[in-house]
Amino acid sequence: MPVTKKQPIKKEECTQYMLPLRDALNVLSGKWKIIILLALSMKDYRFKELQGEIDGIAAKMLSKELKELEENELIKRTVYDTMPIAIVYSITPYGKSLENVIEELRKWGLKHRKRIIKPVGGVIF
Amino acid sequence: MPVTKKQPIKKEECTQYMLPLRDALNVLSGKWKIIILLALSMKDYRFKELQGEIDGIAAKMLSKELKELEENELIKRTVYDTMPIAIVYSITPYGKSLENVIEELRKWGLKHRKRIIKPVGGVIF
Repeated sequence: MPVTKKQPIKKEECTQYMLPLRDALNVLSGKWKIIILLALSMKDYRFKELQGEIDGIAAKMLSKELKELEENELIKRTVYDTMPIAIVYSITPYGKSLENVIEELRKWGLKHRKRIIKPVGGVIF
Repeated sequence: MPVTKKQPIKKEECTQYMLPLRDALNVLSGKWKIIILLALSMKDYRFKELQGEIDGIAAKMLSKELKELEENELIKRTVYDTMPIAIVYSITPYGKSLENVIEELRKWGLKHRKRIIKPVGGVIF
C-alpha cells in the first residue's frame, strides 16, 4: 500500500499500517536520539566528547538517551580498563540499519532549510 | 560525506552536517506528527475521524500537533461552509515530500518489530 494512496481504507488496515511506524517512533522518540546516532555513525565517542559535539544537550539528557539507545541495542558502551577508565560509545550494526532513515531525514531537512530560510542575496547556513 | 564514514572529522564539519537533521527533527518533533502525516497521506480527515484513527491521542494534543503541522505548511485546514460547518485536514504537496522519510521509518519499524517480537510459532503482523 503506497503512502500516497488516497482512497478510503478500513480502520483496521490503517492501524496495522501505522503500527511499524509507531514502533520506530517509540524507539527514536525525542529530538536527540537520531542526532546521537548520526554522530556515532561517524566515529566512536567518549561521553564528554559527544556532549561537546551535540550543541545544547544536557549531561543528564545525554546519559538518559544513551542508556535507552543501548537498551535497544542501537549503540554499545565499552569500558576500557585504562588509567583512568575510558568509557567509549559506538554504533552497533543494528544502529547502522537506521542509516537510510537518518539520511532521508537529513535530506529533507536540507530542503526544508532552503525553503524556510530565504536569504537576501546571502548564503544559507 | 557518507553517514558511515569512520574517520575523525572537524567539529565544525560535524555541526554543519547535523544541522539539517536537527531542522527536520524540530519540525517533526514528538511521536505524533509523523503518524498524523501518514494518516493524512492516505485520505483527508475531519478532526474526530482522525482522532479515532490514531489510537491513544488526546484531543488537545491532536489539536496542538495539527496546528504546528499547519504552521509548517505540511498540512492544510479547510473550512467548508456547510450545515454544520465541516473542517477537513489534508496533506499538502510539501507534506508529501516527507513520503520517503515516513516510508524508511516504517520499513525500519517493520524490521524492528520482527527483531523484538520473537513469536513462538506465532504470527508477527
